[in-house]
Amino acid sequence: MKLKFTIAYDGAAYSGWQVQKIGLGVQQRMEEAIAKIFPGAGRLKSSSRTDTGVHAIGMVADLEIPDAEFKMPIWKVGLAINAHLPEDIRVMNVVECDANFDARFDAKGKQYRYFVWSGPAMNPLLRHTAWHVRHQLDVPAMRSAAKFFLGRHDFKSLAGTRDYEMDSTTRTLTRCDLRRTGALLTFIIEGDGVLYKMCRGIAGTLVQVGEGKIPPAAIKEILEKKDRCAAGMTAPAHGLVLWKVFY
Amino acid sequence: MKLKFTIAYDGAAYSGWQVQKIGLGVQQRMEEAIAKIFPGAGRLKSSSRTDTGVHAIGMVADLEIPDAEFKMPIWKVGLAINAHLPEDIRVMNVVECDANFDARFDAKGKQYRYFVWSGPAMNPLLRHTAWHVRHQLDVPAMRSAAKFFLGRHDFKSLAGTRDYEMDSTTRTLTRCDLRRTGALLTFIIEGDGVLYKMCRGIAGTLVQVGEGKIPPAAIKEILEKKDRCAAGMTAPAHGLVLWKVFY
Repeated sequence: MKLKFTIAYDGAAYSGWQVQKIGLGVQQRMEEAIAKIFPGAGRLKSSSRTDTGVHAIGMVADLEIPDAEFKMPIWKVGLAINAHLPEDIRVMNVVECDANFDARFDAKGKQYRYFVWSGPAMNPLLRHTAWHVRHQLDVPAMRSAAKFFLGRHDFKSLAGTRDYEMDSTTRTLTRCDLRRTGALLTFIIEGDGVLYKMCRGIAGTLVQVGEGKIPPAAIKEILEKKDRCAAGMTAPAHGLVLWKVFY
Repeated sequence: MKLKFTIAYDGAAYSGWQVQKIGLGVQQRMEEAIAKIFPGAGRLKSSSRTDTGVHAIGMVADLEIPDAEFKMPIWKVGLAINAHLPEDIRVMNVVECDANFDARFDAKGKQYRYFVWSGPAMNPLLRHTAWHVRHQLDVPAMRSAAKFFLGRHDFKSLAGTRDYEMDSTTRTLTRCDLRRTGALLTFIIEGDGVLYKMCRGIAGTLVQVGEGKIPPAAIKEILEKKDRCAAGMTAPAHGLVLWKVFY
């Protein structure tokens, strides 16, 4: 039978989601814990691959387990696996799903959130989950710049140069919002998918718009140039959270 | 001259605010850093004394420094002191204040926030700043119970048995709200002051109301009994944040 997992993790201690040759992936810790409960389980296949240091609240993954090994009520599966996980990884939800469900290819969209603490001194309670930007930021300018990212574009200028397997760098963003609560800024980035480091490229570029280093209208040209050097900096990994995957 | 400090800290590594005989107080780290900038400074006198493991965003303290040592613009003072502090303590703001200002005795009110993550699995990103409660909670019952704490009461039933110097255990609460955002519950407790462990007593009691162990109407009797054993449990320290001090 097939199970659909929702997983949350603090990415600080991991070299991203994927099992790594060097360093430790969240997937590896997850599969070790799963093996304690379901020794015959297959690989845990995820919707996304988060980068080193990136967090997740709503990572989704699918897992095939032998029917014969499924001996507990479904609501106990998460608790049983969590008992074998370190505190920085947690199974938040487990449901049975269709045998054909594929966490990666069935994903219709993803929401990422990027957190920035804007002020001369960092909030110590957010130091592991938000990027500290010392300069005063022009939030209205950042909001007008964010609008240029909405819709269907070739996002080559915003993505990392490493690419996995993708032949197209075109994606559709349905949300690129900026919320402000005091000194805390939250970017909400939602679309049919994101390229490697794309969310961090968008957040870094918008922060540089807020600092007055890039004019809002320049975003259009940045996208048209299809060149990573045209855009702003890549924001650090620890401010990014994979928030939700839509099916 | 006299300075008014606003200080934030992650309380995990400290035995509370106050300089301790055993363990390390936030005050001690602060005074060590201040001494690097103002060797002739007096003691750093705070509005409140937070307990072991409790956090703060808006702790206020006053400091007397010799006029002759004040050689930098006021906006640089926080930056200079932060350079000598560990990452889990930060001076958020420094202003010059009246020579008579007293952070403790001039405080008109304080706001505390207590965070609870309610669900079978803990959110790993909040594991250091929220209390994990596994049971489903009846939030409407908790809200009706919270109303009984509002106003002027003898809070002896909610406070720790250790008392500092206070001869009266009567306090006035102006807010005792409960906000919900998904699985995250936030208690907002505001009043003219709080007794030792009182916020954690209120949060723990309200969670037990939410679990169905204490009926909302029992809060009235709990207060009347003036006996710590009458109330519910003391919620753990790491969910509590001193949010703001009013003058």
